[in-house]
Amino acid sequence: MNVRSYAFEEYVERVRSFHGFAAPGVLIGGFMVDLAYQHLPEEGLLDAICETAKCLPDAIQLLTPCTIGNGWLRVIDIGRFALSFYDKSNGEGFRVSLDPSLLEAWPEIKNWFFKLKPKKEQDYGLLMEQIRKSGTSICRIERVRIAPSFLGKKQRGKIALCPKCKEAYPPSDGPICLGCAGEIPYHVSEIADGLAPERSKGQTSIDIGDQHALLERERRPTG
Amino acid sequence: MNVRSYAFEEYVERVRSFHGFAAPGVLIGGFMVDLAYQHLPEEGLLDAICETAKCLPDAIQLLTPCTIGNGWLRVIDIGRFALSFYDKSNGEGFRVSLDPSLLEAWPEIKNWFFKLKPKKEQDYGLLMEQIRKSGTSICRIERVRIAPSFLGKKQRGKIALCPKCKEAYPPSDGPICLGCAGEIPYHVSEIADGLAPERSKGQTSIDIGDQHALLERERRPTG
Repeated sequence: MNVRSYAFEEYVERVRSFHGFAAPGVLIGGFMVDLAYQHLPEEGLLDAICETAKCLPDAIQLLTPCTIGNGWLRVIDIGRFALSFYDKSNGEGFRVSLDPSLLEAWPEIKNWFFKLKPKKEQDYGLLMEQIRKSGTSICRIERVRIAPSFLGKKQRGKIALCPKCKEAYPPSDGPICLGCAGEIPYHVSEIADGLAPERSKGQTSIDIGDQHALLERERRPTG
Repeated sequence: MNVRSYAFEEYVERVRSFHGFAAPGVLIGGFMVDLAYQHLPEEGLLDAICETAKCLPDAIQLLTPCTIGNGWLRVIDIGRFALSFYDKSNGEGFRVSLDPSLLEAWPEIKNWFFKLKPKKEQDYGLLMEQIRKSGTSICRIERVRIAPSFLGKKQRGKIALCPKCKEAYPPSDGPICLGCAGEIPYHVSEIADGLAPERSKGQTSIDIGDQHALLERERRPTG
């Protein structure tokens, strides 16, 4: 049972190294990526969509060229354990999800996936064994077509200096940057000793109280 | 000039392997991570915030334990080239940004950062040389305190079956999953041949027309 070009145990080691621990979700995610790639064409540039921020993005980043930072992976956090790969030229691709109806044969995976037992009562060894043995058999695969408006790279356009914080920002965001507009979850308490010149920073005086508004806006589209 | 435990050229190779190409933003990001770590305490569990989705998250993922999938890295895409690391127990940490006022000595970095030249007119060799030579000297570091309401892990709570698509989802999202509620940018056109049982899928009939609403919602808090 391989995960792309890796033996399962090799993949487990790569997950440990990147993700910090051999998380069941990243391991199952490896098989999900593998199943998608069995069906994807060899040619073409692939982009990825991940429907959860939990675990699964790391399987994609470990096994494919798609990362958060290069923009080929986008996380749409709608809480479903599913991923899609598609040709960015035409939006054609495959979606793979974990199929709950196929978990009856794998009770420890079901316990984990549906949180039927507290974590400390789960049998991690048995869970790993069931993940390794079930492989892609618990996954569902479907053809998808990505909406044309979702394809293509979002460009931020020009870059300018924010008149408040004097940092670079995309002026398409407004007359001041979104940080100075209040979209930050931190307070700048002091300039670190001797490392940068003192100057007036807009956000030092920003009230961070309205956390709800912050969270509402923190994931707004980047336009 | 090292980037954490790597010689610069080693880091360039790691960036190529993970990010797909030696992107200037990931290289400069390496020095930014390095500068933050020079000031962070050895003890404690660190989380990261990145203020742009472009390039910088990959420097964090390559050089620290924080990834998107393990939740220790969160991207707040407000378009500023800055990152923060903080102790998750108390929110104390450091923010590092690229300081535009320090770029006058490095004209090719300035050209790239402010998009002053079209990409094809930029001198990539010179840009790489200036990145390597400038190192952390173009970065600004500040102490930050993360808002208490931003600390801690967001829990999705219970998991249930969506009555429409029959996939697992967090019922705290509503009576049906956000995918079936329209938050998907794709159309499921057919079940891949023989790989999964046919069944009624809610999203097969969902109109994906309202892309604006989709993008508005795709980054909503997962609460």
